[in-house]
Amino acid sequence: MIITMKKNAPKQEIDALMGRLSDRGLSVHSSIGENYNVFGLVGDTSVIDPKQIEANPYVESVVRVAAPYKKANRLFHPEDSVITVGNYRIGGNEPLVVIGGPCSIEGLEPTVKIAEAVKEAGGCMLRGGAYKPRTSPYAFQGMGTEGILAMCEARKQTGLPIVSELMSADKLDEFVEHVDMIQIGARNMQNFDLLKAVGKVDKPVLLKRGLANTIEEWIMAAEYIMSEGNDKVIFCERGIRTFEKYTRNTLDLSVIPIIKEKTHLPIIIDPSHATGDWKLVESMSLAAIAAGADGLIIEVHENPECAWSDGAQTLKPKKFAELIAKGRSIARVIGRDIA
Amino acid sequence: MIITMKKNAPKQEIDALMGRLSDRGLSVHSSIGENYNVFGLVGDTSVIDPKQIEANPYVESVVRVAAPYKKANRLFHPEDSVITVGNYRIGGNEPLVVIGGPCSIEGLEPTVKIAEAVKEAGGCMLRGGAYKPRTSPYAFQGMGTEGILAMCEARKQTGLPIVSELMSADKLDEFVEHVDMIQIGARNMQNFDLLKAVGKVDKPVLLKRGLANTIEEWIMAAEYIMSEGNDKVIFCERGIRTFEKYTRNTLDLSVIPIIKEKTHLPIIIDPSHATGDWKLVESMSLAAIAAGADGLIIEVHENPECAWSDGAQTLKPKKFAELIAKGRSIARVIGRDIA
Amino acid sequence: MIITMKKNAPKQEIDALMGRLSDRGLSVHSSIGENYNVFGLVGDTSVIDPKQIEANPYVESVVRVAAPYKKANRLFHPEDSVITVGNYRIGGNEPLVVIGGPCSIEGLEPTVKIAEAVKEAGGCMLRGGAYKPRTSPYAFQGMGTEGILAMCEARKQTGLPIVSELMSADKLDEFVEHVDMIQIGARNMQNFDLLKAVGKVDKPVLLKRGLANTIEEWIMAAEYIMSEGNDKVIFCERGIRTFEKYTRNTLDLSVIPIIKEKTHLPIIIDPSHATGDWKLVESMSLAAIAAGADGLIIEVHENPECAWSDGAQTLKPKKFAELIAKGRSIARVIGRDIA
Amino acid sequence: MIITMKKNAPKQEIDALMGRLSDRGLSVHSSIGENYNVFGLVGDTSVIDPKQIEANPYVESVVRVAAPYKKANRLFHPEDSVITVGNYRIGGNEPLVVIGGPCSIEGLEPTVKIAEAVKEAGGCMLRGGAYKPRTSPYAFQGMGTEGILAMCEARKQTGLPIVSELMSADKLDEFVEHVDMIQIGARNMQNFDLLKAVGKVDKPVLLKRGLANTIEEWIMAAEYIMSEGNDKVIFCERGIRTFEKYTRNTLDLSVIPIIKEKTHLPIIIDPSHATGDWKLVESMSLAAIAAGADGLIIEVHENPECAWSDGAQTLKPKKFAELIAKGRSIARVIGRDIA
Repeated sequence: MIITMKKNAPKQEIDALMGRLSDRGLSVHSSIGENYNVFGLVGDTSVIDPKQIEANPYVESVVRVAAPYKKANRLFHPEDSVITVGNYRIGGNEPLVVIGGPCSIEGLEPTVKIAEAVKEAGGCMLRGGAYKPRTSPYAFQGMGTEGILAMCEARKQTGLPIVSELMSADKLDEFVEHVDMIQIGARNMQNFDLLKAVGKVDKPVLLKRGLANTIEEWIMAAEYIMSEGNDKVIFCERGIRTFEKYTRNTLDLSVIPIIKEKTHLPIIIDPSHATGDWKLVESMSLAAIAAGADGLIIEVHENPECAWSDGAQTLKPKKFAELIAKGRSIARVIGRDIA
Repeated sequence: MIITMKKNAPKQEIDALMGRLSDRGLSVHSSIGENYNVFGLVGDTSVIDPKQIEANPYVESVVRVAAPYKKANRLFHPEDSVITVGNYRIGGNEPLVVIGGPCSIEGLEPTVKIAEAVKEAGGCMLRGGAYKPRTSPYAFQGMGTEGILAMCEARKQTGLPIVSELMSADKLDEFVEHVDMIQIGARNMQNFDLLKAVGKVDKPVLLKRGLANTIEEWIMAAEYIMSEGNDKVIFCERGIRTFEKYTRNTLDLSVIPIIKEKTHLPIIIDPSHATGDWKLVESMSLAAIAAGADGLIIEVHENPECAWSDGAQTLKPKKFAELIAKGRSIARVIGRDIA
Repeated sequence: MIITMKKNAPKQEIDALMGRLSDRGLSVHSSIGENYNVFGLVGDTSVIDPKQIEANPYVESVVRVAAPYKKANRLFHPEDSVITVGNYRIGGNEPLVVIGGPCSIEGLEPTVKIAEAVKEAGGCMLRGGAYKPRTSPYAFQGMGTEGILAMCEARKQTGLPIVSELMSADKLDEFVEHVDMIQIGARNMQNFDLLKAVGKVDKPVLLKRGLANTIEEWIMAAEYIMSEGNDKVIFCERGIRTFEKYTRNTLDLSVIPIIKEKTHLPIIIDPSHATGDWKLVESMSLAAIAAGADGLIIEVHENPECAWSDGAQTLKPKKFAELIAKGRSIARVIGRDIA
Repeated sequence: MIITMKKNAPKQEIDALMGRLSDRGLSVHSSIGENYNVFGLVGDTSVIDPKQIEANPYVESVVRVAAPYKKANRLFHPEDSVITVGNYRIGGNEPLVVIGGPCSIEGLEPTVKIAEAVKEAGGCMLRGGAYKPRTSPYAFQGMGTEGILAMCEARKQTGLPIVSELMSADKLDEFVEHVDMIQIGARNMQNFDLLKAVGKVDKPVLLKRGLANTIEEWIMAAEYIMSEGNDKVIFCERGIRTFEKYTRNTLDLSVIPIIKEKTHLPIIIDPSHATGDWKLVESMSLAAIAAGADGLIIEVHENPECAWSDGAQTLKPKKFAELIAKGRSIARVIGRDIA
């Protein structure tokens, strides 16, 4: 951590601040400049709050050198983590997983039917929303437990593992019992109580990036889960909010190599929510594979025009199958495959 | 709601879509253009999901005409809502409330002391965090119940009503019992389960704007609370996330006249979190008052350099008192006052 | 164009507004709703300024239906445009062009040397900055004419066509004489006088997207060039400005399918400026190819640590050659090739 | 400047880099940490390009300590600069200037008429666009020289100094001869050739902030002008581009105290372009005054519905007069006045 102090800082102020930092076990190196004095702190600075130091009126700026995450940090865990969900292994050099399914679960029969279509198209896991985060209280809020049970039946009939979004810790037991991977949605990426709760169970967590969260905040959300004991975290990029209006969000594919450089965890891409437009899903999926993603999660519905939510970004099974076929060719070119 | 369809849309496709919309009680008016056909829907469109209609490959775009909120909408509730917290009335033409206090509650004695300082400076309500949303799991997470009880004691000794942030519905009873106004933080603005929970109690809610949420989404979050029965919602702007790096967030003061035009609810401003820099707090506070805000919420600490969180944006009581004095002069110029 | 008016609009106000619009050759269709009245305008609305209509206090909103661009619009020009630069054809189903070279031209000898390295690595065009847009007036501003002449010599010795950035219309003659493709930089994307100037010459234009410009504004910038007579416009995405700090900009690859849907013009990708980090360039290049880009423009330097600008995002020739080899495999998988 | 190097950096690499920096007159202080080594550079680092150093694969990050601007920097020029335009003095503790006028100049007679209305309302300077930066090539592009001459006549009849936007250096002589203050528009804030051109003349420059430019880039644009010899620069905030859709841009009023802390130059606010909505102009103007702005620039037109551009954000003279009257009361409360 580097502290820059103004030239007019009285010696006693400097000494007092540096004394407090030494007391916390840090060693201090100073550089005296023409307009500023600069102090470098060596030691475990993760316990220091930069905002507290910046409260000092003689401090010009405080900059972290070391990343604030530990358990997710590749520096301390150089090998790729591979996470098992059902029969599939996600991450490292394993074949990519392609997850498909409807935005909202709409009943037992349609869920089994779409699961069969996903499987036939080459998908290896079923997604579906039973509890739905909707902008409007007047929109369909999800089937709840009935939806989860419909997914369980679809799993029974097809063998596909299931993933669904958990919105509130009071449903955690239900998810631990029934679901193969728990999704934390973008809007809850910094719902810290929910992160702590899923950190205490032994179940893979699909952690979506918040709409306006930096990569560092996203890794810190993973760190929350891991610091409670659950290190089965899979990142999921689903687009960030920008000024652009032609797409629902802006898909940031540069996170793929960055997450792999900074952490040892897998990352999968959600092109459906990122773009909000089914016409863009295939090309963004192929791009994600070429960039090194460990998987895709894609909205699929027999009849998007009648889907209970997000129809505009949903593929029909036939398009989904074509996408997987093309994606497999690209995966093989870069030395991977699709599971 | 306006639906634009491509010129190559087959008549049967158009008829099928319009038939489904008529069946839901909407009447349809059509305009035939050179390159597009445009259909206007009249009736209650709040139950229609534009994304479902956009799933139709012949649909070019869908645009809402009517705002998607009802209970918060000034169109259906022309008079200002005034919300009572303790002895204070917030909104309408009432005197502005100025809320002060530390970012984190740090114990019984310091809380009573800062409450006395806030009161002496002219503040009329005490803020303080007992449950803290922190980016890092290794940062101080708040004193919890002990912090809430310290605030209660400070209220007893000073008479100041208290406001604190609720992060999880499982603490709601504690907040209903002890706190005068429940704060929903920026990161939880779209934690819909939490919004529904506070919508079921009879307690004022201070609803912070999410870091990257549009004004419309913010009003829809209020609508979630109101649709459950609690119409005591006060908006709180605390800056949005942009590309700028000199400030922590970008304070968007234009929301003051916009919230007052679109809704009937009060709005207060948090210049501390918006700027992240105590040197900017006074000028942004005076600006907020001049723009018509119904109140301010400001971080105050005896010794910001030793505050357990957010010291950099915290005022000392003396500066807080000066701010209130200047603010009162501006409030009087525009026909208001400070409580 | 759809005009929504408030319910309290007096009949004479409505009649006056609709009369003015009819006078401009538009026909008007009206839908009477419960809370708003909606008017659809049919005809050539590109001459109508929505902001003028919004000045009417009874108007709630004005929404365009038809895109505001004509010459760039695929609706009126369904076939892909293919643009010739030197011996290469860009766009349609042609092989992708990969352009390489230094950020800044640094003299005759190094330019010839890097051109040879670019050619040997498999690149087919040379880029280099002779006039440099630098944030600081104290930074190196480019070699000017001497730099352009160095590129000409490199072309003579290697046969590679050359592309360089034009910052000011007073150098246009120099560029028309010497350069094979004129680059308009991101900061000048809405320098309308410069756009009009390059619109009057017969030379391909590489039009970079502005840092904070929407896709629609970008297409309108192309429309400026085309409306003056030059229809040889190639789009170049180079990242947009967002809140993220780990990358210099956020590369928006969804523009590739969008530009191809909305316009008939080619698009190439600049992963170097987008990411600002050489370690991310390869994966973003492969992603761009998989998504359907018509080419890449990449910074290459023998010794990035000694480059006069932008070293951090620059590849060495060996890495550049590897990227082209991998990229070619991906291009072939999707039915393209690299030139 | 602080350089953080990876722990695996070979000693010879470190020595080579530090040797090159020493050769450029900098002294280097090192701190050896557990995971990184940190080097502090002391001396004039404004000539060092951080991106060149980051090209070294052993470098983790490079952080500037000193601001990259000199002539605009308050550190080296502690007193407020006051800039004279016509009979008015802008900056320091001088009375605020309120500039009014139409977006586009529409002819001699209307210009004289609106100038008279601006003067009568209490405005002290006339704004008007003769050369217009329009998103569409099909929109009105301005009257050009005829518009400038109409403004000159209005000045002759009313005594109001005039300000207008310069879009291209080839019109600079015309502006130097006729205009009292040259405006550089948001889209040209980083048109460096234009900045250098206005830096060579002796005429005040109103420098608008770019739509997506940081405060530091904005100050660097001023530095471009000042480094050529013209130190009469006045900043003008006009809103930045964000995700919000209810306003045209997001007005960032925190720039007022920041510009005054970091630089010695004046700053005025443009609430018309920032909000894009005349209903928001008054409250944002009063907020700007309360926050310490040195002036306002506001769009005024006799009949906004018939204005040739930007009618939606334009005030009628009566509203403009009311705004000035209220603004004066606020200015006096904070110890200023309106000229």
